[in-house]
Amino acid sequence: MLDPVTPTFLPGLQATIEVFAVIAFALSGLAAGLRVGMDFVGVCFVAGVSAFGGGTLRDLLLDRRPFFWMEQEHLLWLVIVLCFVASIFIRRSHAELTEKWIQIPDAIGLGLFAALGAQIALFEGASVIIAILMGVISSTLGGVLRDTFCNVVPKAFSDHQPYITLAVLGSAIVVGLDYLAFAPWIALVSAVSVTTIARLVVLAFNVSIPAWRA
Amino acid sequence: MLDPVTPTFLPGLQATIEVFAVIAFALSGLAAGLRVGMDFVGVCFVAGVSAFGGGTLRDLLLDRRPFFWMEQEHLLWLVIVLCFVASIFIRRSHAELTEKWIQIPDAIGLGLFAALGAQIALFEGASVIIAILMGVISSTLGGVLRDTFCNVVPKAFSDHQPYITLAVLGSAIVVGLDYLAFAPWIALVSAVSVTTIARLVVLAFNVSIPAWRA
Amino acid sequence: MLDPVTPTFLPGLQATIEVFAVIAFALSGLAAGLRVGMDFVGVCFVAGVSAFGGGTLRDLLLDRRPFFWMEQEHLLWLVIVLCFVASIFIRRSHAELTEKWIQIPDAIGLGLFAALGAQIALFEGASVIIAILMGVISSTLGGVLRDTFCNVVPKAFSDHQPYITLAVLGSAIVVGLDYLAFAPWIALVSAVSVTTIARLVVLAFNVSIPAWRA
Repeated sequence: MLDPVTPTFLPGLQATIEVFAVIAFALSGLAAGLRVGMDFVGVCFVAGVSAFGGGTLRDLLLDRRPFFWMEQEHLLWLVIVLCFVASIFIRRSHAELTEKWIQIPDAIGLGLFAALGAQIALFEGASVIIAILMGVISSTLGGVLRDTFCNVVPKAFSDHQPYITLAVLGSAIVVGLDYLAFAPWIALVSAVSVTTIARLVVLAFNVSIPAWRA
Repeated sequence: MLDPVTPTFLPGLQATIEVFAVIAFALSGLAAGLRVGMDFVGVCFVAGVSAFGGGTLRDLLLDRRPFFWMEQEHLLWLVIVLCFVASIFIRRSHAELTEKWIQIPDAIGLGLFAALGAQIALFEGASVIIAILMGVISSTLGGVLRDTFCNVVPKAFSDHQPYITLAVLGSAIVVGLDYLAFAPWIALVSAVSVTTIARLVVLAFNVSIPAWRA
Repeated sequence: MLDPVTPTFLPGLQATIEVFAVIAFALSGLAAGLRVGMDFVGVCFVAGVSAFGGGTLRDLLLDRRPFFWMEQEHLLWLVIVLCFVASIFIRRSHAELTEKWIQIPDAIGLGLFAALGAQIALFEGASVIIAILMGVISSTLGGVLRDTFCNVVPKAFSDHQPYITLAVLGSAIVVGLDYLAFAPWIALVSAVSVTTIARLVVLAFNVSIPAWRA
């Protein structure tokens, strides 16, 4: 599965994707917590749960230890610093925290975590369906927990805009390109781009899918 | 604990119970998802969480790996196919999805998973109280998650009809008959029958238990 | 890290703290369940989830097996007996179950579990930030689950009184005193006292912290 040419930069690419995915979901959790008027510790908590929830369940179900945030503890510090800086910045700028502040980083995190989760599962020897499931779980659970803790009905279930569907798509791209023997980095880049762009288009044009029953 | 006469068909019986329990909870999750107007991916998600939630926590707490749905991946495919077929069927038939479509499969799944969960725990060497706890967790968590994701207050906690109580009863029957040295298949069959029939009677006759304080 | 003088009574102190923390959270869950009119099994369930939820996630994330309540099964029996006795007592006494019946044991459990969780994590070799995180998770998750199952917005997130903040403080005291080479029992006693007293003061004087944005 590992292309002999890529190993030199693939681990770096995966780590980079992980960092950006964590930042993206932390920002989205941060915005969500600030919007509902939480105090600093509450905001950190929601940012942390959004950033680490999905990946933790992925690691738990794949029986990977240590958990990714235990192995890379700088991610925990990163989220704390991010909460400090972003909170102060947002406060100073008197920016209005609209729904977009939550949804745009969420769209980026969705693409990054779906692709990474599916690829990690493949590397652990998971089958097609388990790999897709892990992509979906890593990329959607953070947002579901964020919404739950902010007392909002999780958008993943309630609005009729593709969200989990796009996580399935992103994970399936990684699995499909792996099956077609493409280099892992190509699978990652393609899946992230397609998923995130598709989600941004959905948000921008308010694309909705019909309920299964009218 | 293992009766030397039964091993030939006991694993088959356990596997059969597992398949039917998964189908029962998947149908109940499917009906619940369709009722609140979810799209296809949402319906699959709720069906999957209902079917696999309880058993996954059981395996996690008993430290059994791989998880039962990783070892028997056909269960995952089964739920996906079931969602397709049942959704189309229900749509075509213009059947009205009443509460009963959720509660009858739920009653069947409750009996099956309570008995199976308690027996698996006993086979893993768990004590009486842990075995009962595992029966209760495997059989009730799926329904609790289903209700939560459909934004309904979990019926297990809110209505005053015996539900968790019956899961305790079913698990206790397995543990009691094991203690009395009955063959494991007798314990399974008795516990499933008693629990499911009791739950159906509760639903049919609207049996309610009083709150602890008036 | 282990002071050569203390080992004789430190394990006993930790076990005692665990028992009292479990009792405190069980009482708080019991009162919460009785307040919303649950039946006996429901009350036991909420008491159990409050008492064991936080510590279970701590053990899971630290990869400690068996779970603390599997190793010390008497804790499970204790909670069941407690539910029986307390329910009958409360019923007989016609005492009114005010919010205080939930919050005072909760404050005690918060201090006990925060200190114990952080120290257990340190003993497992966790770093500063992981130890604090484990103290916070063990001490707050039980209450969050209790409130969720009673259909109340978790107080940890919604009121603007320090709660998670105090769990951070208690855990940080344990980590700080360990760093300063104090005996572990001194760290435990200091952290428990400071955290619980601070929480009781917060409740008594209705101390509130401002939202991050006005």
